[in-house]
Formats: sequence, C-alpha cells, structure tokens
Amino acid sequence: MVLKVVQCEANVRPNVRLSTYKEPITTKKITIKEVAAHAGVSYQTVSKVLNRQMQVSKETEQRILNAVRELGYRPNQIARNMRANRSHMIGYSWVPTAPNQANHILDQFLSSMVLEAEAAGYHLLPFPFREGERLVAAYRELIDTGRVDGFVLSSVNYNDPRITFLLERKFPFVAFGRSNPEVDCPYVDIDGADGLCQAMRHLISNGHKQIAAIAWPEDSRVGNDRIRGYFESMLEHKLDIRSGWIERGEGTFEFGREAASRLFRLPAPERPTAIVALNDTQAIGALHAAREHGLEVGRDIAVIGFDDAPMSQYLLPPITTVRQPIREAGRKCVEILVALMKGDQPQEQQVLLQPELIVRTSA
Amino acid sequence: MVLKVVQCEANVRPNVRLSTYKEPITTKKITIKEVAAHAGVSYQTVSKVLNRQMQVSKETEQRILNAVRELGYRPNQIARNMRANRSHMIGYSWVPTAPNQANHILDQFLSSMVLEAEAAGYHLLPFPFREGERLVAAYRELIDTGRVDGFVLSSVNYNDPRITFLLERKFPFVAFGRSNPEVDCPYVDIDGADGLCQAMRHLISNGHKQIAAIAWPEDSRVGNDRIRGYFESMLEHKLDIRSGWIERGEGTFEFGREAASRLFRLPAPERPTAIVALNDTQAIGALHAAREHGLEVGRDIAVIGFDDAPMSQYLLPPITTVRQPIREAGRKCVEILVALMKGDQPQEQQVLLQPELIVRTSA
Repeated sequence: MVLKVVQCEANVRPNVRLSTYKEPITTKKITIKEVAAHAGVSYQTVSKVLNRQMQVSKETEQRILNAVRELGYRPNQIARNMRANRSHMIGYSWVPTAPNQANHILDQFLSSMVLEAEAAGYHLLPFPFREGERLVAAYRELIDTGRVDGFVLSSVNYNDPRITFLLERKFPFVAFGRSNPEVDCPYVDIDGADGLCQAMRHLISNGHKQIAAIAWPEDSRVGNDRIRGYFESMLEHKLDIRSGWIERGEGTFEFGREAASRLFRLPAPERPTAIVALNDTQAIGALHAAREHGLEVGRDIAVIGFDDAPMSQYLLPPITTVRQPIREAGRKCVEILVALMKGDQPQEQQVLLQPELIVRTSA
Repeated sequence: MVLKVVQCEANVRPNVRLSTYKEPITTKKITIKEVAAHAGVSYQTVSKVLNRQMQVSKETEQRILNAVRELGYRPNQIARNMRANRSHMIGYSWVPTAPNQANHILDQFLSSMVLEAEAAGYHLLPFPFREGERLVAAYRELIDTGRVDGFVLSSVNYNDPRITFLLERKFPFVAFGRSNPEVDCPYVDIDGADGLCQAMRHLISNGHKQIAAIAWPEDSRVGNDRIRGYFESMLEHKLDIRSGWIERGEGTFEFGREAASRLFRLPAPERPTAIVALNDTQAIGALHAAREHGLEVGRDIAVIGFDDAPMSQYLLPPITTVRQPIREAGRKCVEILVALMKGDQPQEQQVLLQPELIVRTSA
C-alpha cells in the first residue's frame, strides 16, 4: 500500500491560534505611589508599614495590604537586598566538559541546587570557570562587588586555592568534593571508596579473585578516593594485587580501551577475570577492547564502571556501575550553605553520601 | 610477579601542604570611607567623583583613584545596579531531564551563555521550570521583583504562554527554539529540517529508496520541524512514502526499539533499508531492535540519529548523526538579548543555525 502524501504540510498548523493563556496580564509595573493613592495614605506610610518600620491602626494597615493585593504590587527585591546588604545569590562555577564528552551530573546537580535555593529565598549565579591564576580572581570579584553571599565549589582537588582564599576571607562556602584530608571546611562529597567496595564485593562474591583496576592519575583526589576502595577490598579479602593490574591514566574512552587491551594481553595465569574502571567512559573503552580480543563481556570478562551515565543502560551489554546521589548532594550543599550565610551553625558541615551499585549484565 | 602492596595509602599524601597560593589576601572589605580618609577628602566627594557626578581638580581626582587602587576598593555592584534600575541578570529556566536520561546540551548551552553574558557585564539567573499554571508566574515574579532584565526561553513549543506574556509585557527575551509560525518574536533556533535533509541526502546518494522515519508526537514543534526534512527529501527525490514507514512516539529508547521492530517485521518488499530517527536515543533503540532481528546495522540496515549525543561515538556501530551548534546558539541568544536589554536594535533578531551531519558507520 502506497500513501500519496501531502503530509509534508501536516506540521504547519495554519489554524492553531496562539495562546490558550487566560491569566489577566499586568502590562505595567505597579509603583508604591499607586498603592498609596489607592489606600489613601502617603507613599512613605506604605513603605514604612511594609518594612515594619512604623505602626499604624489595624484599619489603615488592612487598607494598605488590600491595595497591595488588589493592584499586584511587588516591592523591588534588589532594593530590599540592598538595604539588607545581601544579594541572596549563590555563586557556582564548573569546569565545562569537552565538546564531544558528556557531563552526566550537571543537569541534576544544578536543578536540585536551583530548587533548594529558591525554597530558601536564594538564586544561583553561575559564572565562568577560569584556569590558573584567574581562578581565584573570579571569586574575589564576586565578593568585592557584593554580587553573592556564598559559593558552592565544584571540581575541588588537592591544594585548592579557592578554599584557602575563602577560608581566610571567612566567606561562606561549601565544597562539593573534599580537598586535602587536613583541610577542615564544609563539604558534601560522595563516598567513592565505598562505591568501589560495593563493586568489589559484587565481583568477589561471584568468585572473582584476579581483579584489575583502570584508575586515574595520582594527582586526582576523586580518583584516589575511589581506587582506595579497590585496594581496601583486595587486602580485606587477602587477594594479591599484581603490579600489572593497576592501570593509571585519563578518564577517557581511549585510555580505557588501551589499558584493557594491555590487561587482556597478559599471560593466561596473570590475566584478570574482572576489571573495575573509575568511570563509565573508561568501562566502555574496556568493552570495545574485549570485543577486539574476542571476549564476551559478562561471560569471559566482568567489567564494572562508575557514574551510571544515562547511556550505560543502553550499551551491549548494559554496564554494571555505581550510581551517585547527585540530587541529594546538590540539596545538601545548598542547605548547609544557606545556614552558613545566615550565620547559623548547620547541623552537619561535612557530609559523605553513599553511592549505590547498579547491577546489569556486564558483571 | 606478585606485588605486596601498601599502596593503599598512596593517596593519603600526608606531606602535601595546602596552598601554593601566593596572592595577597584582602581579609576585609574596603569601604568608601577608608578610601576618603586615605585620599584626604570627604566620602561624598569620592562617591561623586567615581560616579562622575562631580568635577574636581586633576590632582584630587588622581589622589582618589590612587587610593581606590592601593586599598583595592570595589564599589558595590548591587548598589550600582539599584541606581541604574538594572539587575544585570538574565533569567533562564529549563525542563530538568528525567533521572535516567541524559541532557546532551545543557553544559554547552549554559557555559556559552555564561561566558557571553559575563563579557557583556551580565550574569545568568537560573530558576526552576514550573509546569502548567505556575509556568508564567515564575517569570512574572522575577520581573516584578526586579531580579532580571531579560530572559532566554528554553523548551519552547506551540502556543507558549511565556511568549504571549513577555510580548504583552514588552519585556526583553529571546526564545531558544521557535513557537507557532505566526508568532513574531526574537529567536535562535537550529534548522532541524535541514539536518534531516542532510541525513536523507546521505542515504539517497548511497542508493536507499525505502526509508522509514521514527518521529515524535505531532504536538512537538521541534519534532515537526525535523520530520519536515524527511517529507521534503522524499518528495523531492520522487520516492513513495508508505504509511507504515512513519512511526510517531516518544523520543525514548523503548519507543525507538518498538518502532524499529515493527518496521523490521514488515513483509520483505515493504521493509525499509534505512531508518532516520529524530534523536540518538531512539536510534539506539533501533540498533537494539536490529540486533534482535539478526540484522547488522551499517550493512543490512542503515540507521541515522540526531543530536550527536557524546556516547553515540562509542556505540557498536558508532552512530551517524546530526550535530547541533549548541555553543553558537547560546552565544547568539545572549548577544541578541543584550542588545534588546540595552534598547538597541539587534542586527538580526531571528537566527536559524545550520546543523552538521556526522557520518560514522551506522549509515
């Protein structure tokens, strides 16, 4: 059956009328003077009553509040912040991902922070992440121009100059991620070591003894946290670690593929039966290497990733991986920061969240 | 060779000292009164000179500017905005992606807007996307409280009540994506029809005549724009379109898989030799369906996606897809909006950007 189409035009929808939108539209901004005229008082009185700087009779107050409601008057938030010497803004900056790479967490992290902040009367102010000497300058500029009341730091690593600066400046911030162990500052982090321990327990309980790791360079704080779970698990289960089993390199597809290829070329008795990778991108590289070596992942070799990148569920085979509670981390960062900005003592200032192993067919 | 490790501790780095950070740290904020005392003038003079509201002798001006520089004084940006009745903020809201799905564009779109805005003296203010009746309220609230000077709209569709509201309110905005064809408003969009035309040209030049499409529901403006390229190409090349070749449903992996399965079950003479999908997630579903039907993608059946999701390059086979110029779109949105907020006439207010076909092995 052949359909002769003019369907091409189906999408033009000439009869669609704009807007089923019914709400009355205020086309101009109501001023305090209009409220005053409506309530029959001076605008100074309206201002003072709304700012609780003056007591008037119950009746007058009611008249003013009615006028505010009826006219839809909203006091200017910037003016209010100005008087309170507050911006009610939270600065946030992140390292942009390379164009052909995915940022698996930004949407969830940002959405949860934006929601939590709004509920507390704050907004986020994202600003560009600068490398090197200009890194700290961007933070100082925002403080000195009064644009933010606090920061959430991302991409925290060892010797983070932002942390030194903000601690000395006594300016409120929360780090998403830990820095050096001796640094005492508010943070929210995800327990990467625990994530690897969960992955290792899963492998070991399935009989694996020869387990290799595709890790990150030694100057990565996050990488070192995760790989610690590998070492601790191997030692705890009294399994030997061959030096050739620890591959360290970038968290890329290419490195994952090369590293796994080297592991597959080890002489049979030394060859690992399972691989843990510190992110899904490396794990996907290992999947490709396995195919190139004629190995079926999930049967001949087990592979576990980290991140639960959304695509991991659609790969063949779907990847067993570690999922991070990103939304909870975003919420917690803002919750602690809001307390700090208000000068309160947060209930807990250092929060370590537990990730969760998602078992699929790659291991 | 077995390595007896104590490597477990390699990451603790007890000797790492915090901070190689050398820049002098200003621990307190400099006030205008301190600048005045340092320069030997009244603070009113400093204020008026810095705001160009008063002329003083060259020598006094120099003394004030020296004091500003030496002490590191920065005028409060909020106070300046307040005087100018400007927030220098751009409101932006997006539909958060479902937890197990990827947002392929947020990082690039947001990063490019944040950079472009900063260069023009603006910051972004992200706020939660509300559904239904509360959608417009969030925009009104930000205008009425003076928090933003303009908006970039995402997830624009037919009959978008935000557009009606902002046009009536005469408040500056740029839509990322078009609404109904009859709506005349500033927008930046990516030419989805052109993307599909490029995909179709590639297939047709490779000899394909029986081409099916996995499309989106008819109420999707973006979906209708993209699928138009399919219809136009088929008609232009005088190829018949069988009714069973147009599958419409959600842009999900599951729908992509089901739709492709139906296509593969068509009787041999009616079976398509190629499939175009409106996003990579549907295309990945089609890849899985092909495998289930014993078809090798790239040899027995061609599949093209749309989006160039970062993972698409790592699939087996890597997906041929349409890449969108997201960074350019972000830059353009802010460029046009900044002109509108300043009351200038932007050079062009309606921009359609061309996507690019990325040929890999799936087609």
